[in-house]
Amino acid sequence: MDATPLDRSLLLDFYGELLTEKQREVCELHWNEDLSLAEIAEQVGLSRQGVWDCLRRAEAALRGFEAKTGLIRRFLERRAEIAAIRGELAELLPEGTQSRDILARLEGLM
Amino acid sequence: MDATPLDRSLLLDFYGELLTEKQREVCELHWNEDLSLAEIAEQVGLSRQGVWDCLRRAEAALRGFEAKTGLIRRFLERRAEIAAIRGELAELLPEGTQSRDILARLEGLM
Repeated sequence: MDATPLDRSLLLDFYGELLTEKQREVCELHWNEDLSLAEIAEQVGLSRQGVWDCLRRAEAALRGFEAKTGLIRRFLERRAEIAAIRGELAELLPEGTQSRDILARLEGLM
Repeated sequence: MDATPLDRSLLLDFYGELLTEKQREVCELHWNEDLSLAEIAEQVGLSRQGVWDCLRRAEAALRGFEAKTGLIRRFLERRAEIAAIRGELAELLPEGTQSRDILARLEGLM
């Protein structure tokens, strides 16, 4: 598992609801709230090994959804294009409230 | 099934790869290529009723993915925001090649 935290947050954000409730809970506790396997084991009533297995199965399922649909890849491509356009607009737009508002809204899409 | 064709194309585009191969094939033939149930039945080796059942199960699965993840809803919200921003920029940007290029790229994201 050599994924970055960002990777896993995106995976969970996009496909987390397709996991079982237990898998989603364990992933959120470990990846988003940074609890240890032992802490999660105590909290959800699994063995430490059970938590580990649950994490591995969940991550495999999440990566499987992305491998099939490519929805995160497509999202990131669109976001990069928005960032590039915003960069050009920052140079090109006239000073003023409306320009600042547009740049802020583009920022909100990044 | 009162969905618009656009609905179903988006559902298939986003989640089609999560269906079985047979389900995906039947949906594409019916929704994208507009073949009749009888034509599809002959082509894929199912009864007409089998094609109908396959379509219903596939559509239910696709709607289930969207109900859980909301990824199409989120995509459409972002797209609407991009369209609104593009509309304002069309009024605001100075004439010129770069402006036209930016508006065209935003159009490509809509």
